[in-house]
Amino acid sequence: MDFAPLRALLGARLSTGPSDLALHGQSEAHFPPMPPDAVAYPETTAEVSDILRMCAAQGIAVIGWGTGTSLEGHALAPKGGLCVDFARMNRVLHVAPEDMLARVQPGVTRMALNAELRATGLFFPVDPGADASLGGMAATRASGTTAVRYGTMRANVLALEVVLADGRIIRTGTNAPKSSTGYDLTALFVGSEGTLGLITELTLRLHGQPEAVTAAICAFDDMRAAVEAVITTIQSGIPMARIEFVDGATVRAFNAHAGLDMAPCPHLMVEFHGSAAGVREQAQRFGEIVAECGGGAFHWAETPEARAKLWKLRHNGYYAARALVPHAAPLTTDICVPISRLAEAVEETAADIAASGIPGPILGHVGDGNFHALLLPDKDSPAQIATAHALAARMAARALRLGGTVSGEHGLGLGKRKYMQAEHGAAWEVMGALKAALDPAGILNPGKLLP
Amino acid sequence: MDFAPLRALLGARLSTGPSDLALHGQSEAHFPPMPPDAVAYPETTAEVSDILRMCAAQGIAVIGWGTGTSLEGHALAPKGGLCVDFARMNRVLHVAPEDMLARVQPGVTRMALNAELRATGLFFPVDPGADASLGGMAATRASGTTAVRYGTMRANVLALEVVLADGRIIRTGTNAPKSSTGYDLTALFVGSEGTLGLITELTLRLHGQPEAVTAAICAFDDMRAAVEAVITTIQSGIPMARIEFVDGATVRAFNAHAGLDMAPCPHLMVEFHGSAAGVREQAQRFGEIVAECGGGAFHWAETPEARAKLWKLRHNGYYAARALVPHAAPLTTDICVPISRLAEAVEETAADIAASGIPGPILGHVGDGNFHALLLPDKDSPAQIATAHALAARMAARALRLGGTVSGEHGLGLGKRKYMQAEHGAAWEVMGALKAALDPAGILNPGKLLP
Repeated sequence: MDFAPLRALLGARLSTGPSDLALHGQSEAHFPPMPPDAVAYPETTAEVSDILRMCAAQGIAVIGWGTGTSLEGHALAPKGGLCVDFARMNRVLHVAPEDMLARVQPGVTRMALNAELRATGLFFPVDPGADASLGGMAATRASGTTAVRYGTMRANVLALEVVLADGRIIRTGTNAPKSSTGYDLTALFVGSEGTLGLITELTLRLHGQPEAVTAAICAFDDMRAAVEAVITTIQSGIPMARIEFVDGATVRAFNAHAGLDMAPCPHLMVEFHGSAAGVREQAQRFGEIVAECGGGAFHWAETPEARAKLWKLRHNGYYAARALVPHAAPLTTDICVPISRLAEAVEETAADIAASGIPGPILGHVGDGNFHALLLPDKDSPAQIATAHALAARMAARALRLGGTVSGEHGLGLGKRKYMQAEHGAAWEVMGALKAALDPAGILNPGKLLP
Repeated sequence: MDFAPLRALLGARLSTGPSDLALHGQSEAHFPPMPPDAVAYPETTAEVSDILRMCAAQGIAVIGWGTGTSLEGHALAPKGGLCVDFARMNRVLHVAPEDMLARVQPGVTRMALNAELRATGLFFPVDPGADASLGGMAATRASGTTAVRYGTMRANVLALEVVLADGRIIRTGTNAPKSSTGYDLTALFVGSEGTLGLITELTLRLHGQPEAVTAAICAFDDMRAAVEAVITTIQSGIPMARIEFVDGATVRAFNAHAGLDMAPCPHLMVEFHGSAAGVREQAQRFGEIVAECGGGAFHWAETPEARAKLWKLRHNGYYAARALVPHAAPLTTDICVPISRLAEAVEETAADIAASGIPGPILGHVGDGNFHALLLPDKDSPAQIATAHALAARMAARALRLGGTVSGEHGLGLGKRKYMQAEHGAAWEVMGALKAALDPAGILNPGKLLP
């Protein structure tokens, strides 16, 4: 690889320093380091276009990088090449409150956008927990706790600017709320994990900050009762803003991590958005369902501070659960099933984990049928690690058997490509044909997603 | 073309009768007849697959047909070939009330599905007016009066079965509410207008029938006041189920068509869905906005019968407006702009139409920034027809100038392909590359959508 043309373009913004390469070869997942050969820090779309033309000319692999918070190794460089880090493309370009839209560069994080929106009465709702970049969230079709109400990135990206493998710059979508003019390229790039192009600009849908917000947590004696309460709530059409499940093991992790004294049993954590009267009505109806399902009393988080504390607890669930077994090699899972099969999926998974002898707290965005088990095998035990991978494979098979998907929100990256044939069959070949049409040399994020 | 193999497959379900060909060469739009060479009536996905393999072998063009209610000539056969009419694939295959999903064949119409759903407490909300087939609605990314609340077909198709140009059968999506496993092929086929494959099965999202529904109509002295009321309503986050604008000319058409005596001025027609208390709250907030904008009193349609009458009036708007000028060659338009530019777009269009001397009632789904002018030039006046086409072209240019799209919901068909370069630029070439990847011989709906 001859990086001279890139160095001429970017100067000191092309890095080959060992610490920078090491940083961009790590992930939050269980994969070994896979560093790129260089890291580029472009500042403009034109530079990204030049970078791609230069890399295409030499067949250099190109991998996009947001904040590195992927849980499936999306941004690792198993074949080396150039990592394009969007840290310097982090401007909010335009906010149009009257159209409830924001145009941003890909390196803007969701929290940075929401800080900028605070005075407008609007917010961007998609919340995967981590303060991920919006470009990365679009590339991986992220979702999280609020998707049950506001949708995933699929629903909240209106338009994109994308640089293709050959350096061409295209725009997908318009600022109109809907359109029926041809193929939905926006939806094609959202979730394409950097294999079809690099996103250099996003137009995002904003939502009105609700007049009233209230959150609560309540305990259940057993997992099935909690999951049944979720299913009934969703089927009854209550517009929950969040409805999260945590099992007893996760609560023990919360207690240890945050110095709490919660009962170590399954809990639901919920949030209601609406008018003051609307929120009261939702909370009342949800309360009736919880009571019917044998749930305990609500602990309300009425103030913004109390709510922030509640959701910080939930968002730190991953780290809290990891801390349960400091000597573990954690393996994160992420399946999503039709809501009618949720109780079955969670119960079978819990039983399978219990039988394995490996710690595996379960938590998830159950309003969408989506949950995670964080499997915690001892990092020095190849047998336990193999057991954990077998558990994860059985979760994936279970999701497919129940009509669901092997990934609700974490994406494929390096970890889940192996399930693509089972989930998509011949449709996976179609994805391969689309990839070949737009990136015939296969320079964009090679080794990921495709056959 | 040798239809012998198709005849062996389909027997009497392959038709070359002149009346059948003529019927499938007509449209609701202004195009001259363009009949296919034969019409197939498959009954199974396997037959559709066989049809496509046989047509691919001979390079015969294949055009899907639902109910023929497209307004842009999508299903016409400008190059002849085989029309595949899905009339005999019209079964509701499965309803899963607990998952709020229905699996249907493409020939099921939206009203047939809703009749079947009546006892479940659920409904399918997308409502383009015509009783279109669900396969056709997916293929054209249809929307209509309720999209402001429930989304377009993009949001309401969860999964598809599709037969590709070479006869391969694929499934896109799963029954889980969300997924992040690879390219969003469902979204790619929705709106592809039969150019990438034929849809043979759809999994649709259902919604709970609202506890309470109420509808109303109210008059405004002028167009800008009505449009400002819409803009304020949308920006304030009131979850309108429908919010439709009709201008004075449309009201005169309603009066003539339905024997009414409404004031011939701009009106808004609205519907609220929710709990009893929620609907009251929405109606009160909307009433305040209307009063601030100088709108008149509401006429409420409280009973199901009164509501049905109100929306029948709106849905017959197209035919009522056509009847205003019986000797016309109607030209339908369909632009969509960001809500902040809606008043400007409607006013400029109205002024342009007024200056032209051609009747052109304006009506639309203004909650989405989407509206139509039905241009009514004299069918024996080439000058008036040319003027109407020039008006339509200026509407398209206006939509693009204001950040919008040349088609909010009618799609491209034969009428709007000419605007694709202006709207999409280099992204149109990308659509061409995707088409070439999946249908290299170009047998699927040739002459439509692509460069």
